[in-house]
Amino acid sequence: MRTRAAVAVEAGKPLEIMDVNLEGPRPGEVMVEIKATGLCHTDDFTLSGADPEGLFPAILGHEGAGVVVEVGAGVTSVKPGDHVIPLYTPECRACPSCLSQKTNLCTSIRATQGQGVMPDGSSRFSTLDGDPILHYMGCSTFSNYTVLPEIAVAKIREDAPFDKVCYIGCGVTTGIGAVINTAKVEIGAKAVVFGLGGIGLNVIQGLRLAGADMIIGVDINPGKKEMAERFGMTHFVNPKDCDNVVAEIVNLTKTPFDQIGGADYSFDCTGNVQVMRDALECTHRGWGQSIIIGVAPAGAEISTRPFQLVTGRVWKGTAFGGARGRTDVPKIVDWYMDGKIEIDPMITHKLKLDEINKGFEMMHKGESIRSVVVY
Amino acid sequence: MRTRAAVAVEAGKPLEIMDVNLEGPRPGEVMVEIKATGLCHTDDFTLSGADPEGLFPAILGHEGAGVVVEVGAGVTSVKPGDHVIPLYTPECRACPSCLSQKTNLCTSIRATQGQGVMPDGSSRFSTLDGDPILHYMGCSTFSNYTVLPEIAVAKIREDAPFDKVCYIGCGVTTGIGAVINTAKVEIGAKAVVFGLGGIGLNVIQGLRLAGADMIIGVDINPGKKEMAERFGMTHFVNPKDCDNVVAEIVNLTKTPFDQIGGADYSFDCTGNVQVMRDALECTHRGWGQSIIIGVAPAGAEISTRPFQLVTGRVWKGTAFGGARGRTDVPKIVDWYMDGKIEIDPMITHKLKLDEINKGFEMMHKGESIRSVVVY
Repeated sequence: MRTRAAVAVEAGKPLEIMDVNLEGPRPGEVMVEIKATGLCHTDDFTLSGADPEGLFPAILGHEGAGVVVEVGAGVTSVKPGDHVIPLYTPECRACPSCLSQKTNLCTSIRATQGQGVMPDGSSRFSTLDGDPILHYMGCSTFSNYTVLPEIAVAKIREDAPFDKVCYIGCGVTTGIGAVINTAKVEIGAKAVVFGLGGIGLNVIQGLRLAGADMIIGVDINPGKKEMAERFGMTHFVNPKDCDNVVAEIVNLTKTPFDQIGGADYSFDCTGNVQVMRDALECTHRGWGQSIIIGVAPAGAEISTRPFQLVTGRVWKGTAFGGARGRTDVPKIVDWYMDGKIEIDPMITHKLKLDEINKGFEMMHKGESIRSVVVY
Repeated sequence: MRTRAAVAVEAGKPLEIMDVNLEGPRPGEVMVEIKATGLCHTDDFTLSGADPEGLFPAILGHEGAGVVVEVGAGVTSVKPGDHVIPLYTPECRACPSCLSQKTNLCTSIRATQGQGVMPDGSSRFSTLDGDPILHYMGCSTFSNYTVLPEIAVAKIREDAPFDKVCYIGCGVTTGIGAVINTAKVEIGAKAVVFGLGGIGLNVIQGLRLAGADMIIGVDINPGKKEMAERFGMTHFVNPKDCDNVVAEIVNLTKTPFDQIGGADYSFDCTGNVQVMRDALECTHRGWGQSIIIGVAPAGAEISTRPFQLVTGRVWKGTAFGGARGRTDVPKIVDWYMDGKIEIDPMITHKLKLDEINKGFEMMHKGESIRSVVVY
């Protein structure tokens, strides 16, 4: 069939909107009509050429929601008409990673996904001339129709609006999941969030959901304060307004009883390795945990004195918020529908597919939190 | 009173054996007759002058065992005649750290201990001329008699031999505790230990106690292999005999089912920051934990790509094996007396106080695992 898609023809160039060919699902695969897709920094990172693993031409996009239109042989967990969210972190429930019950990083199709192809090694996308176009993160939600492995779709309730819950396909789950799955924040905790973009806001609402007492947001842009407060931020620190952000946070978290100070949990949502260090070092001696969410530039390294760890701090990271997609994503959709979490205020712009490059321009200018393409 | 002690007169000089004055215990303090003390790398690190926080003149030693001979006003938890192990990490049970139940790093007397004085700011030691001599790590077990805060002694059973259980005051507890308190290793785990000195051997026997399936030891000295096997090592890797120690360990831990590979837990017992990086990176994607035990040179930093953490590895450290001294040390003494752990083969040399410098020479030459001074 033919479908309309925004194609990343080469690194550093705008996406090109065009008709492409899409083959039907092979065994174990499903075809999904994407109804809406968010524009994420990771798409932008790859499109820019900064991602050393980026491959072209490809159809980007990994934060979508849609409806199953066709299933390949052997598919049992979804059927045509089911509403689904594509999963760039699949959940096969059979590989060593899934069966460990210790990680969400399913490894069953990792190799082929990284190469931009389906598990059988081939792509379903091609140009009208027949040249193959690669998949991206196993999702390619910048195409109106796409094909995914069955293990890479989460079935969700049918009353959930596509143009909101698509964001659960990446940003919402990453932020909230980092709090509840990776850090396992407990009621009464003190936490710091570095970077108040889309991920940071979702970490903040995750902390509110988890019952944190103190939710400190850190950003060099004071314009981020109001929205962060709306999602639950209790204190704001602008590194430009203080000599030492680590000392500032340590002081802010001291109590008359506890004069050591430091956050119980910190989250880096910036991708800046110096910020990652600050995030670790502002946590509490003895038990502070720092969770890296942001994606660092290629080759960048984090550093600290080992003394920071020997005195009890823990350095962790998270991918897709530690969420097992098929199991956890439907729950997060329920939380949204039940009003436990908010998404609507974060969707600042809705675009048509033809306007997708404008969405990336707004991202670069910091004008949007999330832009969503509605097909 | 007068007591015999080995005094660190200045950095880089041998210890000087001499009579010193020791004041009796003030309120909240106890005087202990040290019966035996181990010689630890940390003493050597400070004596060498490499420790930026080292102060002189001081009486070093922090791995002792002895008998309470006098208690100051208000002391209720021990009495003269009680057998005790001095604790460089005290356990006050009242500070924010102790009450958190999340760390063993009691902070009640941290500041004064670091300055080489008792909690009231003064030293109990002086030269026969009356010049003050500093305490060290709150213990100063290189003196036949010493004074400690009540919260810095663990009461132990009276049938435990001083010349063995003194080692529980540091090395044994650090190694075993890193496994059971910090890493919380579970039955069936695969673990790697970098550095097969005194701490490494105790990590190995901690892993055996915890029921680990695979206990891989890593050392550039093949002479360490035999003793490590005696304590439970199942596999030995010499980095000099392989191109890439990380790849070697990842391969060694693969199974027919799990072709990802990597250790569930790793422990650095070397203090070398490059080894610390290898220790992190050889752990399993998704859930591997690496625990830093070794003390790095002043100013040295650990580094890695954040991707290592984002893909599920956890970087931790431990001090005194995460053990709460007054609570946990008596239990470890019981384990020794019950034969659950071994200490005797690790005590390779017994010395008189006059021979203490010889003990450090053997340490430098790698001839000893542990030398113990018996008073």
